[in-house]
Amino acid sequence: MLEYLESLRLVDHHCHGVLGKDLGRTAFEETLTEAETAGPPGVSMFDTQVGFALRRWCPPILDLDAHAEPGEYLARRAELGAAEVNRRFLAAAGLDALCVDTGYSPEVILDPPGLGRLAGAEAHQIVRLESVAERAAADGVQAGRFAGEVRSRLQAADAVGAKSIAAYRAGLELSGVRPSEAEVAGAAGRLMLAAESSGAPPRVCDEVLHRFLVWCAVDAGLPVQFHVGYGDADADLRRGDPLLLIELLRAMDPIPAMLLHNYPFHRHAGYLAQVLPNVYVDAGLATHNLGHRSPALIAELLELAPFGKVLYSSDAFGLAELYHLGALLFRRGLAGFLAGGVEDGAWTARDAERVAGLVAYGNARRVYGLG
Amino acid sequence: MLEYLESLRLVDHHCHGVLGKDLGRTAFEETLTEAETAGPPGVSMFDTQVGFALRRWCPPILDLDAHAEPGEYLARRAELGAAEVNRRFLAAAGLDALCVDTGYSPEVILDPPGLGRLAGAEAHQIVRLESVAERAAADGVQAGRFAGEVRSRLQAADAVGAKSIAAYRAGLELSGVRPSEAEVAGAAGRLMLAAESSGAPPRVCDEVLHRFLVWCAVDAGLPVQFHVGYGDADADLRRGDPLLLIELLRAMDPIPAMLLHNYPFHRHAGYLAQVLPNVYVDAGLATHNLGHRSPALIAELLELAPFGKVLYSSDAFGLAELYHLGALLFRRGLAGFLAGGVEDGAWTARDAERVAGLVAYGNARRVYGLG
Amino acid sequence: MLEYLESLRLVDHHCHGVLGKDLGRTAFEETLTEAETAGPPGVSMFDTQVGFALRRWCPPILDLDAHAEPGEYLARRAELGAAEVNRRFLAAAGLDALCVDTGYSPEVILDPPGLGRLAGAEAHQIVRLESVAERAAADGVQAGRFAGEVRSRLQAADAVGAKSIAAYRAGLELSGVRPSEAEVAGAAGRLMLAAESSGAPPRVCDEVLHRFLVWCAVDAGLPVQFHVGYGDADADLRRGDPLLLIELLRAMDPIPAMLLHNYPFHRHAGYLAQVLPNVYVDAGLATHNLGHRSPALIAELLELAPFGKVLYSSDAFGLAELYHLGALLFRRGLAGFLAGGVEDGAWTARDAERVAGLVAYGNARRVYGLG
Repeated sequence: MLEYLESLRLVDHHCHGVLGKDLGRTAFEETLTEAETAGPPGVSMFDTQVGFALRRWCPPILDLDAHAEPGEYLARRAELGAAEVNRRFLAAAGLDALCVDTGYSPEVILDPPGLGRLAGAEAHQIVRLESVAERAAADGVQAGRFAGEVRSRLQAADAVGAKSIAAYRAGLELSGVRPSEAEVAGAAGRLMLAAESSGAPPRVCDEVLHRFLVWCAVDAGLPVQFHVGYGDADADLRRGDPLLLIELLRAMDPIPAMLLHNYPFHRHAGYLAQVLPNVYVDAGLATHNLGHRSPALIAELLELAPFGKVLYSSDAFGLAELYHLGALLFRRGLAGFLAGGVEDGAWTARDAERVAGLVAYGNARRVYGLG
Repeated sequence: MLEYLESLRLVDHHCHGVLGKDLGRTAFEETLTEAETAGPPGVSMFDTQVGFALRRWCPPILDLDAHAEPGEYLARRAELGAAEVNRRFLAAAGLDALCVDTGYSPEVILDPPGLGRLAGAEAHQIVRLESVAERAAADGVQAGRFAGEVRSRLQAADAVGAKSIAAYRAGLELSGVRPSEAEVAGAAGRLMLAAESSGAPPRVCDEVLHRFLVWCAVDAGLPVQFHVGYGDADADLRRGDPLLLIELLRAMDPIPAMLLHNYPFHRHAGYLAQVLPNVYVDAGLATHNLGHRSPALIAELLELAPFGKVLYSSDAFGLAELYHLGALLFRRGLAGFLAGGVEDGAWTARDAERVAGLVAYGNARRVYGLG
Repeated sequence: MLEYLESLRLVDHHCHGVLGKDLGRTAFEETLTEAETAGPPGVSMFDTQVGFALRRWCPPILDLDAHAEPGEYLARRAELGAAEVNRRFLAAAGLDALCVDTGYSPEVILDPPGLGRLAGAEAHQIVRLESVAERAAADGVQAGRFAGEVRSRLQAADAVGAKSIAAYRAGLELSGVRPSEAEVAGAAGRLMLAAESSGAPPRVCDEVLHRFLVWCAVDAGLPVQFHVGYGDADADLRRGDPLLLIELLRAMDPIPAMLLHNYPFHRHAGYLAQVLPNVYVDAGLATHNLGHRSPALIAELLELAPFGKVLYSSDAFGLAELYHLGALLFRRGLAGFLAGGVEDGAWTARDAERVAGLVAYGNARRVYGLG
């Protein structure tokens, strides 16, 4: 089954760009997990599930033995240089298509076409809703024209889907009601006023605007990705349970809602994928962070979620290793899950291969209308 | 250990009636899981854990090979007809007694005695509290007499337990305080007024009334079953965590509170079963929906819950297959759990058999006072 | 790997005193789990995961065969007497150091030095913050001098850490803001007034005071232990999710915050340990209560938590068996986790031994500054 999954090229329906520069040890450790720092004295981020997974699977791609020590690994990485390292890991990921969230790029990272070239894969754009709104606000549109401006920018974006980061700002408890033009104009006015008086760029964090943006995507016919659960410390997990989103999920049917990451609420997400027709789920980001434990996560996600509603994503950001680790751990976890079922007689090998194809690429191609 | 569990006839302490009519593929898929629909284009509800469990275990009961394709299975099912299909699956479940929730019957389904005859088991009634109240309101009792009327109807019901569906309406955050007669009269008046002005039948969804109804059951000495967690999309899971119910659970001691389903909050339920003397738990509905993953659920439920506080239920509704799958997966999951412990030396085979008897029927017989 | 872990002496960074008196069966069952009672008729607390773990591992320490029946076990225990039983189990735990929470001692229990002598281990004190405040209030300090009095008592305490039981009183949703002197004086006045008018001893249950106490510990440079999640029925689990504490955890950086127990929120705790630099976690209390299932708990805790952020504690209280069971199940669970990874090639044996040392004693020694 693992061999079969290794023969399949994946659709990574949610990832980010890769950093184009070399990294020292501290910066590398800071980028490895969702922590903001490389850890207090005495704590190394290499001593984590993702750290050990990296040391197991990545050194051979750089011509080292598995389990190389961090220092040796980083030395070899520096020796090869970021461009070569990126090329090797993106190629190793075995991807057929990538859907790249272009909304967050604090540093020099590759754009979707560049990433696609490295990976030998089609590259599509996922447009980040809040970024569209923030750029419109920064460009100084009138509050009363804000809604129309955002809508037309979104229509003009060459994207296969949209992404909401409400979970990072107002939280996921978004109402299911479409906000009125007056509400949007009021919220837009407050957004621009706050930016003006603070001198900082506009920052959407108003429930009305997050909700408005989701409806813009719905009206544009775009599947909407939602950040859910696990993320860095800015993602207040108290407000990141996907159950909070149920009213909006229901209201936006039949436009697909793609619940991303989900850990540690992945069982809640699986429930939503079963009971609501337009809800889809993945375990991106968590898969590579859980490393050797990722098979448990994949099995739990697949408890209630129909297998036609589960997708692959890496949510890789920055480190090229994460595109490879995400794909590798996903393949191994899903293969183990499916092979275990075949061995126990729970399903046939033929059904297992069919399900593997759905989750690896079929569901993503169908939902996003890719080729 | 599996052989031993197969030799035990189970008490299914919470199930519903079985449909007496034949079903086409769409209707069958709609009834298979908790989704309202058979899934959007490209998604089959057969491609789920419960779908694969059905294809593995049910075809042989209908003289087909395991893993029959859905089309073949449904054709054979139609050929045999609902009556014969129901007879075969209910008999295969290996039940000694059923406690049937008679509160929800949108279609022609068998009554408890009919179900008991098919299963070759004693059949008992679980009276649904909200249905009693709604019928009393529909019959036009005066608001001031509503409480007395409900109490006397409940006393007259020939039931071994009562069931609350507060989780589907007001949510589980019910206070522990017994409502006053005036509060109940006020709420009853609002209930009947709402029905009158809308023209729809009365629908209890008021925290005061749910709580009043639980106290009626307590006063009648009836164990109270609570829907908890997993259910269809109407069961707002945000308000379905059993921890929300802790005050009422504590207040109703020593009357037993039976927490049903519980997934994905089954560890919360196990905690309550340990720390509160009158709380009991099961994993009905989730057991067959998790299929090949149900052993993990059973093991997690049994982390904190004392083994004298865990019961079996199917929560089967409509499809005869679910009575069989629930019982089969429960037996296999519990057997695997207990046999694993024997193999590892965690407990003796003798203790394992004793615990199997408690969970399979002993705890239910003791709590409901069955024969 | 198990042999290696058995060769390591543990630091138990959170435990309580052991009872110095003999116990009858009912009292023993009441002390075994977090239930207040020995269970309703027909339910034995021996029929639990911890009960079976006790019957497996403890009888040989008292010269009986594993799996002795409860009656036989308790008879032998009575025959040996509490002093000898305590001596045997504390010695069997294989501890190098204990950090003893001295805040709750309803009965005759050994003090830290006494416990240390039995265990052959260094004994350190963890000062319970609410107890310090309650004693200061009981001693009749003026409200305006309360803050200073508490601060100086805390400075005078010979402790390596402090413990907050906010989860048992106001809940974990503590703000991150340091309360003003006026707020503390007001809350202290209310605390003493309530005690005076009720005649009961002062009982801290005010969010301002819990928060004030944490800041006192922070100012004293003491790592702060927080009760999180699992505990007896008084620990309202609705308010015990560690995510509720995120603002205070962030604000108190770089003083270490030690999240205790955590079950069933251990994945939430692991997330916090990853994303916040000053957060550490354990699975005390839950480890022995989950018995044969404790390996699953340990594996889930280690999903996101950096291995340099995980500690051992027993949270043993009262029964000498629990010090032994906690240590034994922790060693076996961690050994199984690490050995499984070595077997699968996830990490090397050398790394596994290094991680074992971190979790068994290294992290605790570093954080508490022990020898």
